[in-house]
Order: sequence, then structure tokens, then C-alpha cells
Amino acid sequence: MINIPQRILLGPGPSDTPARVLEALGRPTIGHLDPVFLQLMDEIRAKLKEVFRTSNEMTMAMSGTGSAGMETVFANLVEPGDEVLVGVNGVFGGRMADVAGRCGAVVEKLEAPWGTVFDQGEVIKAIERVKPKIVAIVHAETSTGAHQPVDRIGEAARANAALFLLDCVTSLGGAPVEIDKWGVDAAYSGTQKCLSCPPGLSPVTFSARAMERLAARKQKVQSWYLDLSMIKNYWGQERAYHHTAPINMLYGLHEALTIVLEEGLENRFNRHRAMAAMLKEGLAKLGISYASQEGHSLPMLNAVTVPDGVDEAGVRRRLLDDYGIEIGAGLGVFKGKVWRIGLMGYSSSRRNVALVLAALREILGK
Amino acid sequence: MINIPQRILLGPGPSDTPARVLEALGRPTIGHLDPVFLQLMDEIRAKLKEVFRTSNEMTMAMSGTGSAGMETVFANLVEPGDEVLVGVNGVFGGRMADVAGRCGAVVEKLEAPWGTVFDQGEVIKAIERVKPKIVAIVHAETSTGAHQPVDRIGEAARANAALFLLDCVTSLGGAPVEIDKWGVDAAYSGTQKCLSCPPGLSPVTFSARAMERLAARKQKVQSWYLDLSMIKNYWGQERAYHHTAPINMLYGLHEALTIVLEEGLENRFNRHRAMAAMLKEGLAKLGISYASQEGHSLPMLNAVTVPDGVDEAGVRRRLLDDYGIEIGAGLGVFKGKVWRIGLMGYSSSRRNVALVLAALREILGK
Repeated sequence: MINIPQRILLGPGPSDTPARVLEALGRPTIGHLDPVFLQLMDEIRAKLKEVFRTSNEMTMAMSGTGSAGMETVFANLVEPGDEVLVGVNGVFGGRMADVAGRCGAVVEKLEAPWGTVFDQGEVIKAIERVKPKIVAIVHAETSTGAHQPVDRIGEAARANAALFLLDCVTSLGGAPVEIDKWGVDAAYSGTQKCLSCPPGLSPVTFSARAMERLAARKQKVQSWYLDLSMIKNYWGQERAYHHTAPINMLYGLHEALTIVLEEGLENRFNRHRAMAAMLKEGLAKLGISYASQEGHSLPMLNAVTVPDGVDEAGVRRRLLDDYGIEIGAGLGVFKGKVWRIGLMGYSSSRRNVALVLAALREILGK
Repeated sequence: MINIPQRILLGPGPSDTPARVLEALGRPTIGHLDPVFLQLMDEIRAKLKEVFRTSNEMTMAMSGTGSAGMETVFANLVEPGDEVLVGVNGVFGGRMADVAGRCGAVVEKLEAPWGTVFDQGEVIKAIERVKPKIVAIVHAETSTGAHQPVDRIGEAARANAALFLLDCVTSLGGAPVEIDKWGVDAAYSGTQKCLSCPPGLSPVTFSARAMERLAARKQKVQSWYLDLSMIKNYWGQERAYHHTAPINMLYGLHEALTIVLEEGLENRFNRHRAMAAMLKEGLAKLGISYASQEGHSLPMLNAVTVPDGVDEAGVRRRLLDDYGIEIGAGLGVFKGKVWRIGLMGYSSSRRNVALVLAALREILGK
């Protein structure tokens, strides 16, 4: 049997999986058309609607990781030649632009420095100028720790006949995500962040407007695997076979969502905020400051600047080897300059904050 | 906690997951760049090479089900306008044609009646006539139970500058798959058939010729999620982050492959053949015959004709309700006319054959 160490996952995801979810994963496999499994799928949809705060009928989990969710929204909603406005202020905005382009979009990038957020007024002006078919924004930029305000964008998108797509991979279940209130037309997330289920599934939700756009397509969706016009008939009442669903992963997601809703979304958001504040205070005492814009830092992903003269990779290695703690390295322009300390879902606890601060204090010799 | 019944899975997949694999799935989640996980990935690659009987460096598991593996081979190897010859004699050949078309291929279908196999001479003639960039064949057509001989196609493909793609979703681990000996350039499988790991991953392998075709592309691969030109840098020594791998599912695949290799491929193939023969003999006594061509029936998927006057769905329902046994319904033109009895991987046992025969005897009143 494989020998897997017990880590404490305080990186950019995966977060620690609670024992209840690990146990659910190990339940016996049943068929993807078994009545018991179909019931489980219905329950997952209902729970995801609560977590996304939406009444969207088309809410479910795609059979791939968060990046498959990203590709799902663009592959289904972009037709070749469509203008797509993408906010790029980190790795995942850049990835959205790449994915949209591969789907045939004419991509217009709105750019901002890494670590900062967009002023919503600027985004709205860009929508009015570009008149895109789609505007796509990252809510929680995992590469920079920036928390993007998005409550005014949906209205402007609607007024300009654009769909509003939101990347909620890192925010869902850890900070408010208000699909209906914000007028989001399509959103995707991952299971391995604030939902604390292992990676492998991507919760998605699509508004009625988005589904109308899909129904009006002139061309087939370029991805068969991610084609919602077929997948909706499996998750819906038709139960038409499309592909074999990842059965055991969906057991895990069901249990993870149950845990999220038992705690309650507001309690969960408060916990994430409180733990981030505790971490920030402790890091300040070690002389470590944030790489993300003041007042716009994510509670579940703390991107902090590596102090001058400190061996960035060496500290991460000592955390892993001596304490079994994983934190994340910087990506892209933040490579070698930033650590990413995740406090996501089950990993966001007083115990873990105290531990990582104590370990850093010892390693940095403070 | 979710309440999952203990089924006996004798359908077209998933097959029963052995306890060791279920236990592996429930090991603690670790990071996708953790040195322990990277070591596990290397071991998975080595084991998959043995199971595929290949020395292909580019052998690994895609983060999606078997259909994602199908899309991977076409999305990476087809460029718009490429001629692709696809053998269609069931659902999965039809799916390949659909997927190839969505990737921009000009698809030429070679068709044969459901349940039959192609004569290899006919396939070779079609290759010489069409001169396609790619010829794609299903090795084990799960919708019809037909076992396609493919040992002569690779040579003809090579002689005509075509790549040879093979769907091994249902055959891998249950019947000989000889990637190198047969000259296969790209193949994909699923985990939930004869490997007896839950669904969610797709083992794939690509020859050096196929990787050269990929490297020579003029356009980006249309799918970011499945783009091997990036994914190879994560599974390879660079360990460059692409997407977050489905960690716990890969624990399961590692254990499932260990079990396959402990038994030994030849022993495994012999077991599948012997159990299929036992089932066939027992079904004959119940007056049930095969829907697949004589001499070309798959040992792991038995497509059999529903006897006249028998309630097709009613029998399946009684098997599930009274015995906890799942068998599969017919798809497409076989809908309502055929049962698909799978004896895949761990499910292929003397115990299960005896049980399903006894249950059918009772239900059919024989």
C-alpha cells in the first residue's frame, strides 16, 4: 500500500481533507445510473445552489479540476469571433485569456499590476467601450492574493448585452459568492480550496441567460467532454448517458458540501476572516508584509513578501521537512519573491495559524 | 454520512473497486508538488508503461474520464482540415467521429454493422484510398461487445504517413493491448473498467511520432486543459504547474495498477477469458445468445440478446433490487434489445458468474 505522509496543507490548494470526506471517498463504487447515485447527484446540485447562492437550474459539478471548469464556461459560451473582455492581474486572468483565445474569442485584456484589484468603474467603462459578448473576471486571484470586488459588474454587463463570467475557484465556501445578487451568468470553482474536498471536480453554475446563449449557438461546442448541451441531460431529469461520472469523487463532494452547510456560510466566512487577521498580525511581528493591495487581501490565500536576504525555497523546504507543513511558492512575476499561505476551508484553524507562525519564527530565527 | 449500498457491478463499467483501492483513495490529501506525490506519479507512469506494453516516455493519466482521454488524443493530434479515418461500428466509434469533427477534422467514416468487427484488410484498403493523417479504431466496442483485431493496422498507417489511434477504454488490463508491437501512436483508456479503480482518470500513451506531430503544430491545441505540450512538463522532470492533479484519485490508480501487476497481465487475461467462457456456457443453457460477432466477443463485456417476450428493463430492475447486481442496458440501436454483462477486472470472478447466472435463472423462471 502506498505510504502517504500526514501533511498540514497551507498552500494555494489542495487544502486538508477532513476525515469525513476521506471516508466518503472510500465508500463502495456504484453505477453512474444507479438510482442511489442519481439521488446523490440531485442532492449535490441542491447543496451547490446554496453554496453559490443561486437558483440557477444549471448548477452541478464538471468531471475535471477547476481549470476544466474554466474551459467549460468559455467553450460553451464563446463562438469564434466573439469579443471577450478579460481582466488580467495575475496568473488566472492570464489563463482565462489563453483559454478564451483557444475557443476562438477575440480577446481584449484589461490589465492591472499583480497584487492589485480593478476599480469596478474602470471595468464598467471598458465594457461600455469594447461592448464585448462576454466579460470575465477572477474573484479571488490565487497567484496574488487579491480579492476583487465584483458587485457592480453584472448590472453593467447586462446593460451592454454581455454575459458576466466569474472565476470563484478559490473564493467559493470561504468568502461571500453571490451569483444571483451580483448578476453572474457563469461561474466555476474547484473542490480542493475552501470546500476541502480533494481536487478533481469543478462546481459550475450557469444562468438562464447563459443557457439561452448556448442554445442559440451556430456551431457545436468545440469540446465534446465539456459540452453542456449534452451534460445537462445527464444531470437533469433525462439521465441520458454522456460520460461515466467520477462516482467516488462525487461522494467526497457530497460530504464536503454537507460539512460546509452544517457550519453555515456566514460562520464559515467569519472564520476565514478571523484566521486571516490572526495570521496577518503574527506575520507583522515577524516583519512579513503582504504582496496584495491593502484592504483587498483574500482571507483564504495570503500572498506575502519574502523578507530580504531570506532563502525563499529553503524556508518552504524546512517547513515541509521539519514540520510537515506545505505553503506555496510564488508564480510568474512573483516567483522567488512571494510565499502563498493558504488558510482554506478545513485548513483555516486557530491551531494551524499558531503552528505556522511558530514554525516560521523558529526557521527565520526571530 | 452518505449511505451507499454494496452492489456487484456487472455492467459496462464502473466495475467493483477492491477494498485496497478504496482504502488508497481515503489516504490524506497531499500537495500536487509534494516530493512524495511526484514520486508516486513516476511510479504510476512506470506501471502504466507495463500495462500498455510500451516504452513511450509520454505515458500518464489525464485528469478526466475515458472520454477526456479520447478528446485528448484528437485535440492534440488533429489540426483543422486534417483528414481522419474513423471506424464506426458502435457508440464509441461514433463518438470518436464527433470529437474529431469538433477538433476541425475532415472525418471519413468506415462503417460496419453493430456487433461486427472490421476486416483488417478493409481498414488497410481504406487507409490506402483516403490517405488520412490519422486512422482511429475502437479496440473494445463497449456498446456491442465486439473485439476488434488491430495487429496489422499500425504497419499500414506508418506506410501511409498516418498516425494510428486506438481506443482501449474497455480492453486495457483485461485483454492484450500491445501498444509498441502493434505500432499504436496514441491510445487512451479509463480507470473504471478492467483496472478496477473508480472512474475519473484516463491513462494515455503517445509514441515519439505522435509527439513530433504535436510539436510541429501550426496552431495551439484548442483545449488548454488537455494540452499535452504543457502537461508533459508537469508529468516530466520539469514539474511545471499546469493544473492541480486529482491527488486522491491518483492514489487509487497507483494501488489499482499495483494489483494488476501483482496478478500479472497474462494471468489476468486468462482469468477474463475463462470467466467469459463460463458465463457464455451458462447463458446458453438459459437460451441467451450473443449480439456480437461469433469469435470476436470481448471477454470483459458480454453483449447478449434479450430473449423474445422478456421485459428487458424489468429484469435489470429485479437484479438490482433483489440481488444488488447491476448489469447494463443496450445503447443506440441496441437499446431495449441487448443486455451488457460486464466481467471487468475485480468483477471478473467465478463467484460473480455463478451468482448472475443463478439470479437470471430465477428471474427468467428457467
